[in-house]
Amino acid sequence: MDRRPVVAIDAMGGDHAPEAIVLGGLRACSELDIDVVLFGDEAAIRAAMPDGPLPDGVTITGTTQVIAMHDEPVSAVRSKRDSSMVRAAEAVRDGFADALVGAGNTGATMASALLRFGRIPGVARPAIAVPLPVPGSKRKQLLVDGGATVDPEPAWLVQWALLGQAYATVRMGVVSPTVALLSNGEEAGKGDALRKAAFPLLEAAVENFVGNVEGRDLSAETADVVVTDGFTGNVALKTLEGALMSMAGLVFGVLDAPDFAEHSMPIKLRILEAAVDLLPDNTGGALLLGVQGVCIISHGSSSSDAIVNACRVARSCVEADVVAKLALAVDKSDPVV
Amino acid sequence: MDRRPVVAIDAMGGDHAPEAIVLGGLRACSELDIDVVLFGDEAAIRAAMPDGPLPDGVTITGTTQVIAMHDEPVSAVRSKRDSSMVRAAEAVRDGFADALVGAGNTGATMASALLRFGRIPGVARPAIAVPLPVPGSKRKQLLVDGGATVDPEPAWLVQWALLGQAYATVRMGVVSPTVALLSNGEEAGKGDALRKAAFPLLEAAVENFVGNVEGRDLSAETADVVVTDGFTGNVALKTLEGALMSMAGLVFGVLDAPDFAEHSMPIKLRILEAAVDLLPDNTGGALLLGVQGVCIISHGSSSSDAIVNACRVARSCVEADVVAKLALAVDKSDPVV
Repeated sequence: MDRRPVVAIDAMGGDHAPEAIVLGGLRACSELDIDVVLFGDEAAIRAAMPDGPLPDGVTITGTTQVIAMHDEPVSAVRSKRDSSMVRAAEAVRDGFADALVGAGNTGATMASALLRFGRIPGVARPAIAVPLPVPGSKRKQLLVDGGATVDPEPAWLVQWALLGQAYATVRMGVVSPTVALLSNGEEAGKGDALRKAAFPLLEAAVENFVGNVEGRDLSAETADVVVTDGFTGNVALKTLEGALMSMAGLVFGVLDAPDFAEHSMPIKLRILEAAVDLLPDNTGGALLLGVQGVCIISHGSSSSDAIVNACRVARSCVEADVVAKLALAVDKSDPVV
Repeated sequence: MDRRPVVAIDAMGGDHAPEAIVLGGLRACSELDIDVVLFGDEAAIRAAMPDGPLPDGVTITGTTQVIAMHDEPVSAVRSKRDSSMVRAAEAVRDGFADALVGAGNTGATMASALLRFGRIPGVARPAIAVPLPVPGSKRKQLLVDGGATVDPEPAWLVQWALLGQAYATVRMGVVSPTVALLSNGEEAGKGDALRKAAFPLLEAAVENFVGNVEGRDLSAETADVVVTDGFTGNVALKTLEGALMSMAGLVFGVLDAPDFAEHSMPIKLRILEAAVDLLPDNTGGALLLGVQGVCIISHGSSSSDAIVNACRVARSCVEADVVAKLALAVDKSDPVV
């Protein structure tokens, strides 16, 4: 690549937009050696910046519409053609940018990428690869699909497994990533109709398929890629997030009790240090697998840290030419449509 | 009822059987004012007891077979007719006992109850009602179905909602229990095909239906009953359990560090005190909804505490005539088969 990677950022998407998103974009530009293009209401973006000229490497592209958190994704992408999200996706499609980063309406961000980038040839449906934090471990598992496609055909899970493996190699440096199927028991016969149909297909087509894992294995170092449908994946992710937060709340409630306050500050700091990789801001965003471009989805309440981390993942995906690697991974599988 | 409640206990089921199960049964008999019948290998059960005559209210029924943790449930129930589990279920069917408590192979315990008790008239399929601990709260939510029936029809979720409401009133004393549907977003249109079909049926048939909730709401006080299919329910439950345990492990790892050890013991005790209701041993077992008898399923690694708590729930179900109340709840719904 003969220029710095360019990341198109939807500056209007996210609970703390545009302030946190713009600040994150500015920081990403200076910290990561990338160019950023901020899409959105120009006055609002300027207002979220320090006064003075734009920093080198930062551009603003003014847009007039915003896709809201509760807009219906596909119809919003179709009707709001001058939205920050759609315009950012088009910049990637047209080669003005190398990757899209968005923290807005997740469904609409995926739909923008899918409709504007198109699918990798042979891929039936896209899936989100979400890096799962494992408490007490620096290793991550990728959960695929974290919520892009509900009601998949069994064969689509095979594609997602292969895409997930290719991405695990790029993102986590794992040479021969293992794949597991999320089910309601470890034995091979466990599962609902989808799992029972997908299991033999995975066994036949995926190297290093280790069989079924259960929900509790999402908090352990079980496999590099855990494959599931987008409905179950979304429920599992949010269940995990809710449980970690509520348990942390319980512990901090105890540590804040008056009789412990004298000794609890260093303990709280050490817990935060141990748990820092678990925070959604630090997992670095999720890659949409199966589309013809790099789309990184950051969580809705993204801080500027979250945007910097999402841009870091975007840059590494661009530098590793991840889309070409994903396309190769799918070519190896049987055709599915 | 003109006699003390009699609980039939599968003494051979569970990771710590028969010792922990037998000890739990003896304790339940003396602490809860109930009679218990221990089913299993007579010599093994006697060996797990103190020497001397059997305590008042405790009986042993010798059986010659054991259903193992990894036996296929339905075929095991059909072929192992003299197993502790099947014989305990038959004692309830035949009126010698009022409730079944088992910590063994969950699928086989459910199959024993289903095949020996039969279904409540009008109930299409059974569901497990699992009390979910909410960190920092004394209130519980019932997750229905926690793993009995995968691939349900949409209308079955309506039955489970009505059964769950009736049970929430018995178990938790809630007068007008609220019901939510576990989905991948809060908006009414969210979900896969099953959720989209079930939502309007729930809206039409269930009083106090509050709509969709997400995985993170399982760790909050959101609804008294959260309804889902048995596959998703099982994944969510185990994800929750795994996340709570791993976060607790992280925190205790910090507290055990040498530089904190001096002050950490009272903090650890307070955390354990705050978290005691979250431990699977203390949630008290799950009721199988929809069968013609009381079947309480305790978790596989049940301690004697877990068995005492399961027997406590069994007794309250018997005293409240819960099966008759569940039958009434289903009669009110449209017929479904």
